[in-house]
Amino acid sequence: MRRSCSLLFLLCGLLAAEPADWLWTARYVVTMDPQRRVIENGAVAVRGGRIAAVGPAAELARRFQPRRRVDRPGALIAPGLVATHTHAPMSLMRGLADDMPLRDWLEKHIFPAEARNTTAEFVRLGTRLACVEMLLSGTTTYADMYYFEDVIAEVTREAGMRGVLGETIIGFPAPDARTPGEALRFTERFIQRFRGDPLIVPAVAPHALYTNSDETLRACRALANRYGAPLLTHVAETRGEVDESRAKRKMSPVEALDRLGLFAGRTLVAHAVWVDDADLQILRARGVGVAHCPSSNMKLASGIAPVVKMLSLDIAVGLGPDGPAGSNNDFNLFEEMDLAAKLQKVATGDPGVLPASRALEMATIRGARALGLEKEIGSLEAGKQADLITVRLDRPHAVPLYNVYSQMVYALKGNDVGDVMIGGRLVVDAGRVLTLDADRIAAEARRFRLK
Amino acid sequence: MRRSCSLLFLLCGLLAAEPADWLWTARYVVTMDPQRRVIENGAVAVRGGRIAAVGPAAELARRFQPRRRVDRPGALIAPGLVATHTHAPMSLMRGLADDMPLRDWLEKHIFPAEARNTTAEFVRLGTRLACVEMLLSGTTTYADMYYFEDVIAEVTREAGMRGVLGETIIGFPAPDARTPGEALRFTERFIQRFRGDPLIVPAVAPHALYTNSDETLRACRALANRYGAPLLTHVAETRGEVDESRAKRKMSPVEALDRLGLFAGRTLVAHAVWVDDADLQILRARGVGVAHCPSSNMKLASGIAPVVKMLSLDIAVGLGPDGPAGSNNDFNLFEEMDLAAKLQKVATGDPGVLPASRALEMATIRGARALGLEKEIGSLEAGKQADLITVRLDRPHAVPLYNVYSQMVYALKGNDVGDVMIGGRLVVDAGRVLTLDADRIAAEARRFRLK
Repeated sequence: MRRSCSLLFLLCGLLAAEPADWLWTARYVVTMDPQRRVIENGAVAVRGGRIAAVGPAAELARRFQPRRRVDRPGALIAPGLVATHTHAPMSLMRGLADDMPLRDWLEKHIFPAEARNTTAEFVRLGTRLACVEMLLSGTTTYADMYYFEDVIAEVTREAGMRGVLGETIIGFPAPDARTPGEALRFTERFIQRFRGDPLIVPAVAPHALYTNSDETLRACRALANRYGAPLLTHVAETRGEVDESRAKRKMSPVEALDRLGLFAGRTLVAHAVWVDDADLQILRARGVGVAHCPSSNMKLASGIAPVVKMLSLDIAVGLGPDGPAGSNNDFNLFEEMDLAAKLQKVATGDPGVLPASRALEMATIRGARALGLEKEIGSLEAGKQADLITVRLDRPHAVPLYNVYSQMVYALKGNDVGDVMIGGRLVVDAGRVLTLDADRIAAEARRFRLK
Repeated sequence: MRRSCSLLFLLCGLLAAEPADWLWTARYVVTMDPQRRVIENGAVAVRGGRIAAVGPAAELARRFQPRRRVDRPGALIAPGLVATHTHAPMSLMRGLADDMPLRDWLEKHIFPAEARNTTAEFVRLGTRLACVEMLLSGTTTYADMYYFEDVIAEVTREAGMRGVLGETIIGFPAPDARTPGEALRFTERFIQRFRGDPLIVPAVAPHALYTNSDETLRACRALANRYGAPLLTHVAETRGEVDESRAKRKMSPVEALDRLGLFAGRTLVAHAVWVDDADLQILRARGVGVAHCPSSNMKLASGIAPVVKMLSLDIAVGLGPDGPAGSNNDFNLFEEMDLAAKLQKVATGDPGVLPASRALEMATIRGARALGLEKEIGSLEAGKQADLITVRLDRPHAVPLYNVYSQMVYALKGNDVGDVMIGGRLVVDAGRVLTLDADRIAAEARRFRLK
């Protein structure tokens, strides 16, 4: 009698159930939604590439009839991580010129190496390697500035990743553009080719104030606004850069860019290490997003960005691994979260600042805001893009667990990422990349030799 | 004809070959010997628990006839890593009380939690968990201060690891000693039980100057010297500790300990964050080793130790993960190497200081020197203990490779460690711990609940 009842109940359930493409369940779902809900024994239902519902696993199992399931009782589900500043193809220069000053590193090593080596094929292999690294450590969206950015966009699509991508526009001959004018024309064609793409957001990316003419910078903003594209640039990375600007222009780089009108539209600036209160007020007033790169700023001894102040002003600060040649050696947002939190603590002398939950926020919803994508990605909420990851909680370094945010930021590793979905497409399955041949790419990269 | 010749040659080779227990070969052997040799296509021969030879693989393959081989063409061989400061059983409090000031953390959370929970069984499980974590990330020797240190020694032996272990002696009731006197008597029995052990170096471990009476501290040194045991303690971790000492004693903690004669014998001090030039001169003159704990010092906002100065004075500075409750969240010397290098760069404003090779030195031979074990471990040299690890170089984040030290410190992860040998005994085989049941221990730790 009891059995027939429960069968009947099950039958009704099936009849009533809404269809779903996927149901993911795990020990915890870390939503990063406005209430910052952490759901124990939670689930995420996915339909048509978007999140259909987030809630208790038991409830969603009753409500949905999924075509496929991912059940990870020994893991957590989190939003896909957002990298706000990278130079993906530099993966092929990993550790090429470490432990030296930024200007020497850039001018004596990186720029010459790029001039000799940066071809479409270099960029293709380097970006494939970077995408594999990012996927295997939970990054689902990245903002990139390099050369041959069209090739980077092709590889990003191939990887099934989300990219905010901009061709570097710089005031000297670049590998694929002899002049900034050429780079601007390249960028316009690039925008026309990729705008409306479900995964790619084409951007305009002047390298920096000190490497471009004011005319070029104004042209960049105009081009970006003509197409409603975001603008990416570097600012106030080193003290020298700021001193130079103050000597030459009698104002800080942030003020100078603001006066040039560069912030009159969606903008993301990388680094913002040497910014004073006036600069921060400008960034806040203009709604400029900031890509904080702790590994890079520490390794190149650039300085310590006032991230706690930025957060207190509610500036959209995300995290970036930067490029893995000198400034960092890999793409791993778990390490950037850990570093961001620890660096601000020691810099301010207050272990309470930038708690783990804030660091995870920077790697997810706040990073999404920095890119102007907070309505689409960065948290697990019904209606948003289905960009989610699972992270294993069963390895020795991950037990016991008292606080899920602490575990995520201070104990878990990029390598604990198990599954990755982007826009409802499974791209990593239990540690295996489905969209790219990770082993072949790693083998090719191992054989790669710089000219 | 050619075949018979080569057979003959092979035969002669076999007849001439010296016996060996093991021959390990890899793409690189990073010796950390006085010449800092890095041998491409290198090998290490092991006999009777010690290193018989280190050299080119082809040469050693001719010279030795090994009973067993470990061939890792896609990896490097390095000395086992040396952790100079841990509180192993705190693994069971991982992330218990993060993001708060040291004194609150210690007095409101950790000490009460320890009073309620620290039993022999807690220590046994916590140490097993810590040993599994350390082995899986390449640590072969660790220096530990906690309670029930005899249980820690038993587990360390069980794990096949090397430990410099000291029962914490502290001026208030501890979980297994109501008074410092009891702890001193416990320590003497502990020394008598474990001295001469091939893996365990029993030590005397007063917690700190500010938590012990001068009388207890003098008794600790006397006990250590009576048995020729090393002494482990914490010093100058926080500015508050130094201010207190200067107010009370009109001298720094380092001076105070020196005046008390605490450095009159082998000593290792943890942290040494707030030390001035006079303190550094004392540490150098007395040959005191220092355990630098960058994760802990950053996370608790204790401060930034003057490690570059220490190195310029040739002080023996090693690296320590400290305890994974508040001060850190895991035991991973790869992360401590990376942090140590990056923190000194940003603190000094010079990206050239503490290059990768120096960071690896701190995690190996210099750490061994800090423990007074540099004649036995810390580098790959004939005659030394066969403590070695392999680290995979074939994963996406590890290619391409330009500089083996850069890769080791800035790109490779604890999780890339493949094999671990300690004193000629294979304890980790291709990522599987042979001496402890890692899965069972992780499962038990997952079920563990604090009182």
